[in-house]
Amino acid sequence: MKTEERLIQRLKDYNKTDFYPFHMPGHKRQDPIGREYEDPFSIDITEIHDFDNLHNPEGILKESMEWAADIYGADRTYYLVNGSSCGILAAIFASVSHGGKILIGRNCHKSTFHGIFLNHLHASYVYPQVIDKMGIQGGILPSDVEKALEEEPDIEAVLIVSPTYDGIVSDIEKIADIVHKKGIPLIVDEAHGAHFSFGKDFPVSALDLGADIVIQSIHKTLPCFTQTSLLHVKKGYANMEAIRKYLTIFQSSSPSYIFMAGIENCIYHMDREGREKMDRLFQNLLAMRKKLSDLKSLHVIGKELAGRYGIKDIDLSKIVITTHKAPINGSELFEMLREKYHLEMEMASADYVVAISTVSDTEEGLARLADALLEIDRNLSGEEIFEKKEDDRLIRVNSRPEVEMTVFEGAMSEKESIPIENSIGRISGEFVYIYPPGIPIVAPGELLLPSLVNIILNYQEIGLPVQGLKDPSGKTIQVIRGKDNG
Amino acid sequence: MKTEERLIQRLKDYNKTDFYPFHMPGHKRQDPIGREYEDPFSIDITEIHDFDNLHNPEGILKESMEWAADIYGADRTYYLVNGSSCGILAAIFASVSHGGKILIGRNCHKSTFHGIFLNHLHASYVYPQVIDKMGIQGGILPSDVEKALEEEPDIEAVLIVSPTYDGIVSDIEKIADIVHKKGIPLIVDEAHGAHFSFGKDFPVSALDLGADIVIQSIHKTLPCFTQTSLLHVKKGYANMEAIRKYLTIFQSSSPSYIFMAGIENCIYHMDREGREKMDRLFQNLLAMRKKLSDLKSLHVIGKELAGRYGIKDIDLSKIVITTHKAPINGSELFEMLREKYHLEMEMASADYVVAISTVSDTEEGLARLADALLEIDRNLSGEEIFEKKEDDRLIRVNSRPEVEMTVFEGAMSEKESIPIENSIGRISGEFVYIYPPGIPIVAPGELLLPSLVNIILNYQEIGLPVQGLKDPSGKTIQVIRGKDNG
Repeated sequence: MKTEERLIQRLKDYNKTDFYPFHMPGHKRQDPIGREYEDPFSIDITEIHDFDNLHNPEGILKESMEWAADIYGADRTYYLVNGSSCGILAAIFASVSHGGKILIGRNCHKSTFHGIFLNHLHASYVYPQVIDKMGIQGGILPSDVEKALEEEPDIEAVLIVSPTYDGIVSDIEKIADIVHKKGIPLIVDEAHGAHFSFGKDFPVSALDLGADIVIQSIHKTLPCFTQTSLLHVKKGYANMEAIRKYLTIFQSSSPSYIFMAGIENCIYHMDREGREKMDRLFQNLLAMRKKLSDLKSLHVIGKELAGRYGIKDIDLSKIVITTHKAPINGSELFEMLREKYHLEMEMASADYVVAISTVSDTEEGLARLADALLEIDRNLSGEEIFEKKEDDRLIRVNSRPEVEMTVFEGAMSEKESIPIENSIGRISGEFVYIYPPGIPIVAPGELLLPSLVNIILNYQEIGLPVQGLKDPSGKTIQVIRGKDNG
Repeated sequence: MKTEERLIQRLKDYNKTDFYPFHMPGHKRQDPIGREYEDPFSIDITEIHDFDNLHNPEGILKESMEWAADIYGADRTYYLVNGSSCGILAAIFASVSHGGKILIGRNCHKSTFHGIFLNHLHASYVYPQVIDKMGIQGGILPSDVEKALEEEPDIEAVLIVSPTYDGIVSDIEKIADIVHKKGIPLIVDEAHGAHFSFGKDFPVSALDLGADIVIQSIHKTLPCFTQTSLLHVKKGYANMEAIRKYLTIFQSSSPSYIFMAGIENCIYHMDREGREKMDRLFQNLLAMRKKLSDLKSLHVIGKELAGRYGIKDIDLSKIVITTHKAPINGSELFEMLREKYHLEMEMASADYVVAISTVSDTEEGLARLADALLEIDRNLSGEEIFEKKEDDRLIRVNSRPEVEMTVFEGAMSEKESIPIENSIGRISGEFVYIYPPGIPIVAPGELLLPSLVNIILNYQEIGLPVQGLKDPSGKTIQVIRGKDNG
């Protein structure tokens, strides 16, 4: 390996370019406080005297996490060094018995499905509403949760993602009430909502609305290192002791002090200066959105959607640009923004693109995005409006899988590889998802319906990052051997 | 929280003191290459264009891990961002079916027991030999492995730790042969042996001796960030695809680029300059050990033990100082070295102390340790030799638990808290271990024999860090309700 080919060198070189990050991590490649980590090796220690132990906190880490819990209004807050993934796994294991039943939003991140797989759970699904024509998922209806809990009294916990990757917030307060009436805990994957607690103009955190366990990726929307997260617990329905125990299992026994100090420093910063910065961000976003109201082909979603589609609120720091009226798709817009304007987005879906904005964004950065979108829109609007083919995005978001066996059974059954286009009617032996956002289109044990197979092929065709397939070429899928439900 | 009370500030302040680290991480608080990470935020990105995806590597991360595999002589090498813990979990899940049987060395790290717990395994044990009077565990005898595999043909994999925390290496070559005759994989927890491949005077890595899956903490004995590790696989007996899959489950879906770049940079450095540095370290260690041969009360273990006690080789970079002839115990020596000499050791056991030395150590650092030990020894040797009470260290290392139920059953049964001193004859509902090293004295489902209860009380009395107990005061233990085998 040549010196200049090393990952570190490529990362440094990349940082010297004019590419602007509208993606995580939320620090946007800048230390929010200012060169606090000039020599990360010098502060990278282990559990020595006076520096406590994350897995058995009795000293400064205990105090630090209690201080953080106070700021967030939690009964207990844990610093996570293995991302929100480990928090989701711990929450699931601590809330549902082995082989038990959990109710989840079908739009959960793959880490939720990993927990279901590992703990051999039966998963029941509630489905997000669909925002017509935009190919965007809405919120989870409290009434759907209520109905599922009535029909299946053996459900032991409920887990939903709110906000979604796209900033869509469900009515957590109502859902928490319904869930608590059954005496079980509500887990909220608030990976994209770590900033809520610091911004009065942003949605209210699930933690303040009755959720029992809330997992937040502090690295996604706040200025903290990638892979750092928080898990908050409220007393009452959550099994505090089990959460603690499972976090020691799903996290390294050698947790990074760089990360732990980074988490604390981020909360410290947000508590002191972050609220004001969030206010400034909000004003900048309003100004930007005003400029973007001139868009003709492209469209930026906003608060007008709240109150419909199960949407309680919308996080305006997520800039969701739809292409549903434009002669291009999400993937193409994503590429245009990168190639011509050097603006790197967080993700592309079939019909929209998501940009993440945080307190670390500059006015100049937001202006670059607005100007680029306006220019692209001007160029597009001259063109004849593209005749979109049958609305696959609707199939995608409407498709409800038929579950033939648990995720564990599906993943562990004997499998064979067949071309994806021939897989209709078979039972999937693997996960298939687009990353990001990492929400499974199909999970092991689910029937490969025509609509699902079409969507996979369609996504591959337009160049979205379809992942999970064992076959690196993406041409074949693992299905359960000898089971044909077609 | 005051600015100066933040963890980051305490870490910086600590780094300004004259405390010298004889503990992990192996970089000893210095960048081995020289200020490559001056602005960690600037290189902390996510899975954007051209920067690949650790969980679905197709570009630079794939190439980097292939390059690393070549250097180590593996068929595949994975960079781990959640420590060796996640590698152990993945190796266990990929090698043993749910509820199946695994043979492990009883001196495995708690992460192995976590894997056994999570996957509901039946664990059979082989026991390390015992080095008489020093309270140190020796190697695992190949004949013990052979006997266990003969007696229990349903064992699906073997996992042993080599080197131990104390640098004791078992005869991996013979063990691998025996294990492979049964057609099953050998997993070696080589957490403390990441440096072996770069040092001709150090033990041979298990990877070169027939092990199928080898997990190394690159942060422990090489100059890399805390929480970074490697998992190497050799083709043949290991389930390559399952390992890949489980690593995506037990690691964050947002892996740190700081860590990944750090791992690559560490290997790059070791490959170019590390072998020479290892030679220099070895010469320095020999010189130091020569000086220490004058010790009278204290004793440093060395190669003289190889060939006995199941020990194939000894890693001299571990400086294991015993107190078995001294009027103090390991815990007291540990404190003396810290308080008077500002030398922070890796761990204390009842009758010895372990210092970790690496390529990042300075001659001055090693001299400080040698001089301190010689001075302490001079002061001790004047004293009357302490009459040690009945040899608890022998009870500890000889004690073989009686397994009443699997770890999962033990952990999940209904429990009650009782004073530890009253727990003899009960079945433990929790892990009890000293951290470091994190090897369980008792695991859930095991009978609390008088010897085990005594050793827990004894360790608490001399101030060793007994952990795992739910009770923060350490006075009570969780036992299975209503089960009394006394």
